[in-house]
Amino acid sequence: MPQLDNVLRRIDSDLDQSLERLFAWLRIPSISTDPAFAGDCRNAAEWLRAELGQLGIEASVRETGGHPVVVGHAKKSGAPHVMFYGHYDVQPVDPLELWETPPFEPRMATLPDGRKVISARGACDDKGQVLTFIEACRAWKAEAGELPVGITFLIEGAEEDGSKFLPEFVEANRDELKADVVLVCDTGMWDQDTPLITTALRGMVYEEVIVRCANRDLHSGLFGGGARNPIHVLSKILAALHDDSGRITIPGFYEGVHETPTQVKEQWKKLGLTPESFLGPIGLSIPAGEKDRMLIEQVQSRPTCDVNGIIGGYTGVGAKTVIAAEASAKVSFRLVGDQDPQAISDAFKQFVRERIPEDCSVEFVKHKGSRAIQLPYDMPVLTAARSALAEEWGREAITIGSGGSIPIVGDFKRTLGMDSLLVGFGLDDDRVHSPNEKYDLKSFHKGTRSWARILGAMAG
Amino acid sequence: MPQLDNVLRRIDSDLDQSLERLFAWLRIPSISTDPAFAGDCRNAAEWLRAELGQLGIEASVRETGGHPVVVGHAKKSGAPHVMFYGHYDVQPVDPLELWETPPFEPRMATLPDGRKVISARGACDDKGQVLTFIEACRAWKAEAGELPVGITFLIEGAEEDGSKFLPEFVEANRDELKADVVLVCDTGMWDQDTPLITTALRGMVYEEVIVRCANRDLHSGLFGGGARNPIHVLSKILAALHDDSGRITIPGFYEGVHETPTQVKEQWKKLGLTPESFLGPIGLSIPAGEKDRMLIEQVQSRPTCDVNGIIGGYTGVGAKTVIAAEASAKVSFRLVGDQDPQAISDAFKQFVRERIPEDCSVEFVKHKGSRAIQLPYDMPVLTAARSALAEEWGREAITIGSGGSIPIVGDFKRTLGMDSLLVGFGLDDDRVHSPNEKYDLKSFHKGTRSWARILGAMAG
Repeated sequence: MPQLDNVLRRIDSDLDQSLERLFAWLRIPSISTDPAFAGDCRNAAEWLRAELGQLGIEASVRETGGHPVVVGHAKKSGAPHVMFYGHYDVQPVDPLELWETPPFEPRMATLPDGRKVISARGACDDKGQVLTFIEACRAWKAEAGELPVGITFLIEGAEEDGSKFLPEFVEANRDELKADVVLVCDTGMWDQDTPLITTALRGMVYEEVIVRCANRDLHSGLFGGGARNPIHVLSKILAALHDDSGRITIPGFYEGVHETPTQVKEQWKKLGLTPESFLGPIGLSIPAGEKDRMLIEQVQSRPTCDVNGIIGGYTGVGAKTVIAAEASAKVSFRLVGDQDPQAISDAFKQFVRERIPEDCSVEFVKHKGSRAIQLPYDMPVLTAARSALAEEWGREAITIGSGGSIPIVGDFKRTLGMDSLLVGFGLDDDRVHSPNEKYDLKSFHKGTRSWARILGAMAG
Repeated sequence: MPQLDNVLRRIDSDLDQSLERLFAWLRIPSISTDPAFAGDCRNAAEWLRAELGQLGIEASVRETGGHPVVVGHAKKSGAPHVMFYGHYDVQPVDPLELWETPPFEPRMATLPDGRKVISARGACDDKGQVLTFIEACRAWKAEAGELPVGITFLIEGAEEDGSKFLPEFVEANRDELKADVVLVCDTGMWDQDTPLITTALRGMVYEEVIVRCANRDLHSGLFGGGARNPIHVLSKILAALHDDSGRITIPGFYEGVHETPTQVKEQWKKLGLTPESFLGPIGLSIPAGEKDRMLIEQVQSRPTCDVNGIIGGYTGVGAKTVIAAEASAKVSFRLVGDQDPQAISDAFKQFVRERIPEDCSVEFVKHKGSRAIQLPYDMPVLTAARSALAEEWGREAITIGSGGSIPIVGDFKRTLGMDSLLVGFGLDDDRVHSPNEKYDLKSFHKGTRSWARILGAMAG
C-alpha cells in the first residue's frame, strides 16, 4: 500500500503543524457546564468549522437548545460511509490552584520518565483525540486527493454536560446523519504500548440533592442540639448508600445487572490489572468497591455510586460556629447491563426522601441519565480496526468494556441503528477531569497514524 | 436617685447621636477570621480607642499575636472597680447574596410587627451590645462628671476566631487588668420584654478534618468503584457521630457531664420553651437533640456536636464526574459541666482515625478549645443587676445558662480569679452569625438604660 505509506510519512513530517492547530483549539476555554463560557464554546465550534472547511469538507455550526454542534459531510460514492463523533467542550478546571501552568495555555512538557506530553485542559479529552482523526483525514486528502471513505463529522459541545440536547438534534436530522457505523475517539489505550478497542460503556444517572432544614443559617451555640443540621442529615443519607461490603443499598438497584460469564472473567484475570498497577499510580492500594469482586469488575462491569461533590455551611478560612440552612451533594451512578436510569433515579429519590426529617425538605436537580451499552463482537469494522491497530502498534488490540459513559453512543444505536467503534489513545495518567490534564505526544502522533490506517483498512 | 434620673433622661435625649456613633463603628468590616480584613480590625480598634478618649478614659490599642485589643482605665477611689469585656470583631458575612442590604452599610429598618431595628453585621454581636455600656458611661460622665464606679475596658478583636491570643494577653497583664468583677455584654434577653442574666456558658472544641484519598482528582467513570472516595469516608464518619437517639457516640464524650437537679429542671419546664416558640420562627418543629431530653436542655445544659461546614469535589454549576482527592469538614462540640476540651479533642481524633481506610490519610486543624463555666449564684453584683434590670424592664430577670460559648470568661476566672456578670440584650431573631443580622432599637436604647442603672446600683 504505497498510498498509505505516503499518508503516514505526511503525518510524520507535518506533526509540528498538527500540534500548532491543536494548541490553537486548546486555547479556547470551551467549558460547557458553566454558562459563563458559552461564548468560548461557540468560538471552539467556529474554529473547528473553519478547519473542516480547509479540508474541503462542507461544514456548518448548527444550533441546539444548548451549545452548537459542528456538522460536516464528505461523500464518496461506492465507499463505506462513516460518522465520526467527538466533542469540542472540556471539563471545568477547578481547583485552579493545583494547575502547574494555566489550563488554557497549552505547552509541551517532559515527564520524569522522558515522555513528551501536551499539557492543557482538553489536551486529551477530547480535543487532542478529535484532532488525531482530523489530522489523519488531512494527510489522506493531501496525499490521495480525497478521503478513502465517506465521512460525516458530528462534533458536539456539551458532552461534559450530559449531551443534553444532542439526542434531539440526532432525532431531528436522522436522514442527514445516517451512516454505516460511528467512529468515536474519546477512550483510552490499555497501556502506553497496547491499543484498546472499547466494546462496552457504563451508563449514568447524575442527581443533585439539596437538603433544607432551618429557614436561615443559625448560631450553633444558641441553636445547637435543638435545631436539625442539614449536613448531618445529608451525611447520614450518603453514608447509607453503601453497606460494609461495598454494595449499594438502594432497593432494586442491582436489577438488570448481569453476571459476567466465567470464561470472560478468566480472560480478565489474565490482563493482570492489579491494585498495585491500577491504584498505585494514584496513591491508593485497596480496591474500594464490592469486596467479592475483582478490581477490573469494580471499575468496568459493575455499577457504582460516587458522590462527586458536597458543600454546606462555612467553608472559608478559620472557624465559624454556624448551623447551615442547607447542604447539597452531587451524586452519580454508573450503570451496566440493563439497569434502567429512570428506575434508578426514582429509587434513589425515594431512598433520600425516606431519610429526610419531617420538618425538613429536599430538592433534586437532574443532570444526566443514560443506559449502558454493549457492542456486538462481530462488527466488520472491528476486524479492520484490529488489524490496522496491530500494524501501527506492533501488538494486538485488547477489546474490553470501559467504566466511563458516553451517553450519545446509546442514542446513535437507538435512533439511527448505528453501532459505534470506540478507539482512543488516552492513558490512565492523562488526568482527564483533573488539574494538569495531558496527552502524550506519542498518543497524538501514533493516534493520528492509527486512524489513517483504520480509514485505509475500511476502504478495503 | 435624681442623678440616675438625669442620666436616663440624657440617654433618651442623646439616642440619635448614640446611633450615629454605632453606625460609624458598624461601617468598619472587622471580620477577624479572614486575614484579608486585618486592617479593618485595626481600624475598628482605633475607632473605639478614640471614642473612649472622648470620655476622658485613658485608652490604648495594644498588640497581641493577632488582632489588637483596646484597653482603657477609669479609676475611682473608694468605689468598686469592674472590668467591662466585649469584642469589636464580627462574623464573616457569607452567603453574601442572602443579605437584603450590604452587611457593612448599617440602616434602620422596620419589621412587619412594627419593631424598629438596626440592620448590619455586628449590629448585635457585639458592637451594638458594647455600645450600650459605653453610651451608659457617656451619660453618667455627662450628668455626674465622673463614672459611678472604676472601670477597666478590655475590648478584643478575635472573639469570633476563638480569642486565640487573649488568654496570653490577660496573663501578661494580670496586675493591670485585675478588678472585682467582669461585666460582659454579649448575650441575649429571654424574650423581647424579659431581661436575662446568663449564669452558665457551654465550652467548645472546634476541629477541622481533612480526609485525603487519591493523590489527585479522578474521573469517576474510569476509577469509580475501584478508588476510595473521600466524601464517602467523611460522610460515614460524620454520620457515625450521633446514634439514632441523638446521643454522641465518641467514647468517653459524656464524662464530666452532670445531671441537672430535678428542682432546676422543674423551673425550666415552667419557662415554656416549646418547639413551637423556639423552633417555629426558624421554620422547624422537631427538636433534633437527645430524644430523652427537654428542648431547653438540648440547647443549654447538654453537650452537642455540629458539623459547621463541609466541602469536597465539584460544587460549581452543573455536573462534573469526578472523585475528589480530598474532602473536609469543620466539626464543633459544645461542652458542659466538667468536660475536658483536650480529652474530647483527643477522643474525636481517635474516633476519626479509626475510620480512615489504611491507604488514606487525615489531617486535623484545631481552631478552638474551652471549658464550660458556671457562675456562683451568690455574687453580690448579681443582686444589684437583678434589681436594676427589674426596674428598667418592669419584670424580674431570668437567670439561666446559655448554649453559646465565651471562652475568655473561663480565663478571667482561672487567671484573675474574677467572676463575670453576663447581661445582654440580644433576641433570638437577631440572626447573629447569619445574613441580615439586626439589633432591636429597643434593645439598644433600654440596654443602655439598663447598664446606667446597673452601674448606679453597683456604686451603692
